[in-house]
Amino acid sequence: MVEEVFVLRPIGIVKHSYSDEYVRNAFQGVDGFIEVFHEYRIGLRGLEGFSHVIILAYLHKVKEEQKKVLVVKPRGLGRKLGLSIEDLPEVGVFATNSPHRPNPIAITIVKLKNVDLDKGVLYVENLDLYNETPVIDIKPYTLDKKVDCVEVPQWFRDLFLKAGKSAI
Amino acid sequence: MVEEVFVLRPIGIVKHSYSDEYVRNAFQGVDGFIEVFHEYRIGLRGLEGFSHVIILAYLHKVKEEQKKVLVVKPRGLGRKLGLSIEDLPEVGVFATNSPHRPNPIAITIVKLKNVDLDKGVLYVENLDLYNETPVIDIKPYTLDKKVDCVEVPQWFRDLFLKAGKSAI
Repeated sequence: MVEEVFVLRPIGIVKHSYSDEYVRNAFQGVDGFIEVFHEYRIGLRGLEGFSHVIILAYLHKVKEEQKKVLVVKPRGLGRKLGLSIEDLPEVGVFATNSPHRPNPIAITIVKLKNVDLDKGVLYVENLDLYNETPVIDIKPYTLDKKVDCVEVPQWFRDLFLKAGKSAI
Repeated sequence: MVEEVFVLRPIGIVKHSYSDEYVRNAFQGVDGFIEVFHEYRIGLRGLEGFSHVIILAYLHKVKEEQKKVLVVKPRGLGRKLGLSIEDLPEVGVFATNSPHRPNPIAITIVKLKNVDLDKGVLYVENLDLYNETPVIDIKPYTLDKKVDCVEVPQWFRDLFLKAGKSAI
């Protein structure tokens, strides 16, 4: 049996001036821009006016061994909540936003400040992606992405409680 | 220059008993399940208790020529709103959820009804994906995915107005 695979090509790239370390620790992410490659720019038409967009990015710094990880301590969340590693449970990668996962694709919701259609540049806020991360898709954030009644598991609520915050 | 590409492998598959045509016309999507392949099942640990999850799927029925489309009439949205093709503007694919886009990856937010960790099955509602669609990632829907003040462009609002609905 031949294994089925899918091939993606970057349509753009994340650009900002912050270090990877700074981005990892920025609770609300950083400001920066998405530079869409010349041949894809016409695909941005009509994006102006959406207050938020969803960036799909390929986390290119994730190594092959890290793609094999299936159980993790959610360190990124722990860091943002100011918790130590001992406070974190081990959970499956699909229950977390860990970059270590079989297909390291990030979904990042950013505030769209401005669009320059000629240059193919989106000026955005709340980026949790490193400088130079390849972008594979851009989608508008529409009302159907907003879930009214969100519930989360006890282990997730407990992390926020330990940090003195609310998870929902 | 060698073109940079990224290779994805499916971690599971969408299963339900509805036809593609039925799924296309179902405003709220359909019920069904996600079958996660055996080797990835441990990655589901801790997912029980999230009310909603985000399914990333590779739209395998999109043809090579359709990946080159950059401007579309948002037919899927038009169909769901009961509008005719003449009512729809031409906009860039990145301003729509069209399956025709350079990297045909769908983001679908589903209600998580139940998880069977042993069988690697998630029972879900609101699937807008065809039966047998390959799944490439699963992420929890957490509060940071919920944007409070969503704004949309005039062309998008106009479509909803024509259909007698509200876009925001």
